[in-house]
Amino acid sequence: MLSVEFIENQRKILDQTKLPFKERYLALNSAEEVSEAIKSMAVRGAPAIGIAAGYALALSDNPEKDYVTLLSSRPTAVDLKNALDFVAKGKTIEERKKLASLWQAGVSEACASIAENGASLLEKHNNVLTHCNTGAVATGVEYGTALGIIKKLKESGKDIFVYVGETRPRMQGAITSWELNKLKIPNSVIVDSAAGYFIYSGKVDAVMLGADRIAANGDFANKIGTYSLAVLAKENSIPFYVAAPLSSFDFSIDSGDKIKLEMRGEKEIIGDAYAGSTSALNPAFDITPARYVTRFITEKGIFSPEGVGSIGKIHRS
Amino acid sequence: MLSVEFIENQRKILDQTKLPFKERYLALNSAEEVSEAIKSMAVRGAPAIGIAAGYALALSDNPEKDYVTLLSSRPTAVDLKNALDFVAKGKTIEERKKLASLWQAGVSEACASIAENGASLLEKHNNVLTHCNTGAVATGVEYGTALGIIKKLKESGKDIFVYVGETRPRMQGAITSWELNKLKIPNSVIVDSAAGYFIYSGKVDAVMLGADRIAANGDFANKIGTYSLAVLAKENSIPFYVAAPLSSFDFSIDSGDKIKLEMRGEKEIIGDAYAGSTSALNPAFDITPARYVTRFITEKGIFSPEGVGSIGKIHRS
Repeated sequence: MLSVEFIENQRKILDQTKLPFKERYLALNSAEEVSEAIKSMAVRGAPAIGIAAGYALALSDNPEKDYVTLLSSRPTAVDLKNALDFVAKGKTIEERKKLASLWQAGVSEACASIAENGASLLEKHNNVLTHCNTGAVATGVEYGTALGIIKKLKESGKDIFVYVGETRPRMQGAITSWELNKLKIPNSVIVDSAAGYFIYSGKVDAVMLGADRIAANGDFANKIGTYSLAVLAKENSIPFYVAAPLSSFDFSIDSGDKIKLEMRGEKEIIGDAYAGSTSALNPAFDITPARYVTRFITEKGIFSPEGVGSIGKIHRS
Repeated sequence: MLSVEFIENQRKILDQTKLPFKERYLALNSAEEVSEAIKSMAVRGAPAIGIAAGYALALSDNPEKDYVTLLSSRPTAVDLKNALDFVAKGKTIEERKKLASLWQAGVSEACASIAENGASLLEKHNNVLTHCNTGAVATGVEYGTALGIIKKLKESGKDIFVYVGETRPRMQGAITSWELNKLKIPNSVIVDSAAGYFIYSGKVDAVMLGADRIAANGDFANKIGTYSLAVLAKENSIPFYVAAPLSSFDFSIDSGDKIKLEMRGEKEIIGDAYAGSTSALNPAFDITPARYVTRFITEKGIFSPEGVGSIGKIHRS
């Protein structure tokens, strides 16, 4: 079963907050419930968020109001808006249901193509470091983005080892490791700050991860910690790859400084158990300037940062 | 009370594994118990480890054997060996007790001087990012190293804000934040991977932290994550300061690649609660090449990486 499914008029989502301990599916009955699931990160991963929101809007009796509710769930990932705009074109519930399915099918096709395109690029790399979760649970389809490429490499018989950044504070690395274990791909979880150690030691051939919103100039927002990995990759002359479908590009934004970055609550970091008086700052995303990106891997091919403008042209055509 | 004390023939240590929740002191009755406390990180921080080991050796009935036991507790911090060698010169328990006290007094004086020297250097910086814990609990004396400088700045009336890296997996940042709160110094805990975000945003004026072992060429070992911070500081043109007493220098080692780095158990990362089949890699330290260091702050003054050789000459004289 996929992490986001639409079965007999029910919006079913895999509750990612329970992973890797429990595979529990939630049936969500309204746009408010879907919005809450996105906020709490029961649904997470830019493409999966888009699909879930699309289904929520499809079944809505009040699509104008629910569009606003859903769009405000999380600010950074652009797939959410792109999916909502796509589904909102439907005038009736039936039309919107068709569009929501079509959107998911589009993501599925895009991710399969990303896996193909990325696998050829990664052929020379045996040891890949990744961050956060970009697997099938994050996309709501069969292949993930960055992790979809790794799955494809495995399917083609390649030996590959993955260093999995645990991704504090929400530990999405646990989901990544769980998915890799299911795929029988050797991997080890590391604390995020150990990435530099493994890169500097020469043990990592490439860093590859996803994106939540890519601006027209190639600057992009992704999970907190991405920028540090980009700087470490550059300093140590290893490639830094970003795998994302066109639905994660935002050609209306010309550079990264215009991307709104979500700040989340301090409890995610310091929890209830911490000493009462301590405060925390919890940016959920950071911006990585385009110049750090070796290649963007999309369903339309592989692009240098300078080439992102030309993706925009394909996208609009 | 200090984090390591010798009171009425008892080796008392503050159990740092219980911080910031509980201030519990342990009375340790043998070199084995002290060695276990160092391994489990009930005593941690290079200078505090040295002092605790010194007292353990002082009271030993079998100093040759206990020297070996204590030295093997943790491999990376050189203070441990330096303190043991100093105390081992005593032929009797009484002599060794005097030497162990003298060692602690020396660390105390050194840290007070580091605080003085560093405060003048940091005068222009209002926002400092630090990693791990370098406060009084880590040194076993009144002033910490990097955090001792921040304490001194506060005492001199300076407004200062500290970004505290939480320091996965053992969360020594919680101890740092607890110490800063006691000193009424404003601070926020951040996940380690958010350091890049705050540095790139221009919110951090300097990175300052401690060291576990500094080689003769200025390469140094410190808590995992230090190297990444050094690279981020360089990339963003902010100073990167290392505060450490001469007892943390190892002039017998000519470069960082000769420093033995401790690998710790994967349970520190993935815990008992994680999915059973997941593995983790847990290097406790990394090496930062000397070229990333703006200045070393010691009790003998402030040195560029190229000047570390001259510290060696002072040290031997």
